[in-house]
Amino acid sequence: MCQLLGMNCNVPTDIAFSFEGFCQRGGRTDHHSDGWGIAFFEDKGVHLFLDDQASADSPLAAFIRHYPIKSMNVVSHIRKATQGDVSLANTHPFKRELWGHYWIFAHNGNLENLPKLPSSARFQPIGTTDSERAFCWLMDQLAQKFPCRPDNATLFQTLHILVAELAQYGTFNLLLSDGTLMLARCTTDLFYIIRQAPFATAHLIDEDMSIDFGSVTTERDRIAVIATQPLTSNETWTKMQCGETLLFIDGAPVFNASSN
Amino acid sequence: MCQLLGMNCNVPTDIAFSFEGFCQRGGRTDHHSDGWGIAFFEDKGVHLFLDDQASADSPLAAFIRHYPIKSMNVVSHIRKATQGDVSLANTHPFKRELWGHYWIFAHNGNLENLPKLPSSARFQPIGTTDSERAFCWLMDQLAQKFPCRPDNATLFQTLHILVAELAQYGTFNLLLSDGTLMLARCTTDLFYIIRQAPFATAHLIDEDMSIDFGSVTTERDRIAVIATQPLTSNETWTKMQCGETLLFIDGAPVFNASSN
Repeated sequence: MCQLLGMNCNVPTDIAFSFEGFCQRGGRTDHHSDGWGIAFFEDKGVHLFLDDQASADSPLAAFIRHYPIKSMNVVSHIRKATQGDVSLANTHPFKRELWGHYWIFAHNGNLENLPKLPSSARFQPIGTTDSERAFCWLMDQLAQKFPCRPDNATLFQTLHILVAELAQYGTFNLLLSDGTLMLARCTTDLFYIIRQAPFATAHLIDEDMSIDFGSVTTERDRIAVIATQPLTSNETWTKMQCGETLLFIDGAPVFNASSN
Repeated sequence: MCQLLGMNCNVPTDIAFSFEGFCQRGGRTDHHSDGWGIAFFEDKGVHLFLDDQASADSPLAAFIRHYPIKSMNVVSHIRKATQGDVSLANTHPFKRELWGHYWIFAHNGNLENLPKLPSSARFQPIGTTDSERAFCWLMDQLAQKFPCRPDNATLFQTLHILVAELAQYGTFNLLLSDGTLMLARCTTDLFYIIRQAPFATAHLIDEDMSIDFGSVTTERDRIAVIATQPLTSNETWTKMQCGETLLFIDGAPVFNASSN
């Protein structure tokens, strides 16, 4: 399995603190050492950094930890390969364009016997993972149903039904973002926390490191952090339920649905 | 205008030497300081690094200059904005998926009054440049003409006709790669060099730096480097003609066509 990290905020925010702890799970405090990736939206553009080395030892991860990029939507992933070899093409997050926006997707879990996409499908996987195949199917379904982007409520309801369909094939924890919203879907493990005023000091689980969020934020900031396992030891993280889908906008969960 | 740099080889090769000189043109030895980007294919995967800062001053460019990534196909671009603001979404190279392969595109020039794509087009631009619009149109035309990838000769002939159609709107120097081949098309300035045994020592124009290629290659290596202006002072670069399209495979120009 793998680990997911997502951030959705109402102001561009630096994810360096969370990424610092998360990276340690890629080969140091945990065994997810088959690659890692991180995507930062910057308005409609995306920085996407991918590496098929363990994040704890990666020079690129070290560079990013010391090169703060402020973003309102970030998706990161560290990989423990289940399907597909260890290669750049199989490294999450995956990126595609739909309706003139980039979409970023990362998956933790394992989908067994997922049907191949027909060669006529608009979105085709590059690599050999179940994850990228599921992402392409999702994008293809959206493109077929909507010639242009629907409103958020419709998009959420549609995605909730589509991801439930994919979850019939196995464990399907995922993060999906188009730079304006973040969809989180849980089968087994996905936790989130909303940080807002009054901000406090947080301490990482995976490294002896603390931050006083009050000193780096304003009163209006709101930041949702979503992760496979809580990243801090002194905050209360909310565990998502099996079959639950949440849509975060501006750092808050706006839509919620469950299927079981 | 902008500057292009491409590399196509028969073995994974480090582009660090050429990129070192090229980067200096992004704000130091030349005025192309509105962003830069570089894409490295690694089998079917792609590392795509983008930055809307000047390459000569960019911490990310400095990192890449010291973090050699070996690749058989590289496309890089430094930007002097003509159409579209300075932003990440407008930074070349651009990436899309077609036929289960990533395609990477960068453009130097200016296309005036290029028609907007219909909203039904499969590939839509994210940013506001003429370049990305031209790329989306190219991908859209290929997808319409071929349900799956045609052979290289057919692909080349089709692309030669399509890029000539786009060149009616203005200056259109471009590099396009799917990780197996590199298409180069010239309106005004595009030079190339084929390096192969016996390898010699080359000296950069933009920086006081030399490399003895004989010490870092084998006798079988063949490397094509394509750039808006020659990068070295002691080698003979071939200037492409206006209206010429070349297809490089394994470090050699394999197909050639001209329209004028």
